[in-house]
Amino acid sequence: MVDKYLNDWSGTRYGTPSDVVLPSSTSEIAAFLRECHEARSPVAVQGGRTGVSGGAAPGDGERVLSIERLNQVEEFDPVEGIVIANAGVVLEDLQSLVEDRGWMFPVDLGSRGSCQIGGNAATNAGGCRVVKYGNMRQSVLGIEAVLANGTVIGPPNRLVKNNAGYSLSHLLIGSEGTLGVITRLALRLVPLPPARRTLLVALAPHCSVSELLAHSKIMLRGALSAIEAMWPDYIEEASRLRLLTRELPSCFQGKRIILIEVEGTSDKELLQMIEAFAEKQLADGLIVDAVLSTSERDALDLWRIREAVADIQLSIRPYVGFDLGMSANDYEQFAATAKERLTNVLPSARSFFFGHVGDGNLHVQVGPCPSATERAVAEDALYELLSPLKTSVTAEHGVGRKKKRFLAHSRSQADIETMKTLKRALDPHCILNPGRIFDC
Amino acid sequence: MVDKYLNDWSGTRYGTPSDVVLPSSTSEIAAFLRECHEARSPVAVQGGRTGVSGGAAPGDGERVLSIERLNQVEEFDPVEGIVIANAGVVLEDLQSLVEDRGWMFPVDLGSRGSCQIGGNAATNAGGCRVVKYGNMRQSVLGIEAVLANGTVIGPPNRLVKNNAGYSLSHLLIGSEGTLGVITRLALRLVPLPPARRTLLVALAPHCSVSELLAHSKIMLRGALSAIEAMWPDYIEEASRLRLLTRELPSCFQGKRIILIEVEGTSDKELLQMIEAFAEKQLADGLIVDAVLSTSERDALDLWRIREAVADIQLSIRPYVGFDLGMSANDYEQFAATAKERLTNVLPSARSFFFGHVGDGNLHVQVGPCPSATERAVAEDALYELLSPLKTSVTAEHGVGRKKKRFLAHSRSQADIETMKTLKRALDPHCILNPGRIFDC
Repeated sequence: MVDKYLNDWSGTRYGTPSDVVLPSSTSEIAAFLRECHEARSPVAVQGGRTGVSGGAAPGDGERVLSIERLNQVEEFDPVEGIVIANAGVVLEDLQSLVEDRGWMFPVDLGSRGSCQIGGNAATNAGGCRVVKYGNMRQSVLGIEAVLANGTVIGPPNRLVKNNAGYSLSHLLIGSEGTLGVITRLALRLVPLPPARRTLLVALAPHCSVSELLAHSKIMLRGALSAIEAMWPDYIEEASRLRLLTRELPSCFQGKRIILIEVEGTSDKELLQMIEAFAEKQLADGLIVDAVLSTSERDALDLWRIREAVADIQLSIRPYVGFDLGMSANDYEQFAATAKERLTNVLPSARSFFFGHVGDGNLHVQVGPCPSATERAVAEDALYELLSPLKTSVTAEHGVGRKKKRFLAHSRSQADIETMKTLKRALDPHCILNPGRIFDC
Repeated sequence: MVDKYLNDWSGTRYGTPSDVVLPSSTSEIAAFLRECHEARSPVAVQGGRTGVSGGAAPGDGERVLSIERLNQVEEFDPVEGIVIANAGVVLEDLQSLVEDRGWMFPVDLGSRGSCQIGGNAATNAGGCRVVKYGNMRQSVLGIEAVLANGTVIGPPNRLVKNNAGYSLSHLLIGSEGTLGVITRLALRLVPLPPARRTLLVALAPHCSVSELLAHSKIMLRGALSAIEAMWPDYIEEASRLRLLTRELPSCFQGKRIILIEVEGTSDKELLQMIEAFAEKQLADGLIVDAVLSTSERDALDLWRIREAVADIQLSIRPYVGFDLGMSANDYEQFAATAKERLTNVLPSARSFFFGHVGDGNLHVQVGPCPSATERAVAEDALYELLSPLKTSVTAEHGVGRKKKRFLAHSRSQADIETMKTLKRALDPHCILNPGRIFDC
């Protein structure tokens, strides 16, 4: 057994699978699942295994179904901006293919070089450009999938508008492989924006993230393609680890840093717009300084600050990762209270706050937390601060195994029972990703 | 029994209901459905009854459940741009409420004064601005709904990103009241654009609609908020019926007319952009003339041409309405062939072609077709021209009762069987809108 099939990017192992199958067509997957359905064999469905919730990691005796060999782009219509591709196509490969023809696939995340579009759909992947383009859900026109008993649903809808019956695609998107195995997708592209600018600002101590956010949305409107926040400890750690390839003004120290990206047709107009925005915020005292990218390379250097998260995580392993959904109005109070609590209950751990603040998505990484007890302490400390049923224990990563214990924080019992009813209807023997999201 | 509960806007009656109930809360609806579930009583769920597929029209012995009394906007957060409202709120009332505070609810359709947001979600309503803002699905953050057995799912998700478990909302959106009764919604607003311009162009005979569409999408990008086409017979009829409040240049006669709307922050920039666009298309010979709105009132006059459809329909009653989803590349060939066929098989009927061409949605109205036989002749003639499983027999109106016979044209048998499995799981006695979409 090759090691890579044993865990996802969180590194946690849950057991030893019985075998790994690598089908190369939808019909092979259908035959395999029919067999598993009849034999009641549990199946661990795997894409690029870049998740961090333990969804793709097999348990004892599970049969690993990897879709990596379904990796063809079947059609690319550069007039309509539609792609039909196999679920195992790597996200970055798709992005490059369409960018060469003036199109963009807007879902983008740090794991782009390994994650696969089928997994992106199964987990409704988010990433950094959701504020403009939405989650994976908004980029999928339709899917083909194999249900637990081998039934192949599809073909993928390829129309922008199609109200002929229930949207099975939208039911399967975000169901984390528990209702079916996505095998083929029709995806919607957007025209590649010719111009982009990245702005890094240091927030004034009295200004809230949501205040700057509101001004950004109003002044930058449709040009706003990303808005990311990083709290002071995060920046300090990135600097300590020498992860910053671009020097920042000294007044950025100890401030909350916001990265803003805009995109559009004319660089001249974008520049005017983003400069006017920065000047107004400086004049109004909402920010204390700003750095604007002068080239594409420079923009990448500014983005590296945000992408430093991968290395920051390594420095605090084993860590607990949080992927919280909340109102933008609650960031400051939450971050301050959470930090204080963590210092009290886990004095030896450090914590870093950052996130996709345009979408109400705050990440917190807490570590080192070597024991399960410590991780549970961190979880209880933070989830207790969140209003039940108004916040999310997983805004984008998915429930998998790691957030299962907290599902009832974000969904009512009626919702969870209804999910189980649907699971039983489509997978009566509970063979697909059992024990993920909830227990059958 | 008040007459209005007996049919939707298509006017077709299917039977006499046993009674009409008008609950004023979610818990009353839950109690009512529990009773119907136990008694196996069929229920016709009604919003504003503005559909045209016969979904809301009750059959013999059905109990009409109208949600018109659930008509409160419970919360409006003008900072985050979120509304929590009851399902019976009339679309136009919601639009007006938020526009007064600088926000826009982007779903907009001709029936705005009567349709209700719960029905808009249940049917995944489309309309004229889908090209920019998407269908109702894209504007709903989450729903509360009552299932057939009285279970209340919810509360509505109000986060932009929430991957905590299956999206029950997305399953119910577009399910036409067959899986549950939507009672409350969290809706996402967009900032009201300060400036709008409307352009009417006459397409050159050699230019295809999809060619102009491609140029519009590239040159107008995010500013493009509507693009609608009307074929020559449509314009001629609107003119004959004196529905045009604005005179059109004589060269518009006999041409395909495209209405283009752009919106943005600065009217000056919009004007520059739309003028440059029109000049380029004129210079390139793709259009023969253009009329640009000079005021809001003038824009309304231009839009009236598109909204004349309501009166054109009246002039050919009883008519058959088509709501086709197809690739934009196929419009011309389809329109020409369909027209010819209809002339052959139904020489006494006239036909009008128009549609939301930015979203692959072509409408055709054919009438008068006094007999069911004639209507079936028209349907068979047109649906035969559409590629099975690659086109839609209903892009936005929904299947209801009228398109049920043609569902298999747009969805595979595996899809339809899976829909029935879901229906049985959530509504085992098939009490909710029975006989709509498919037979249980």
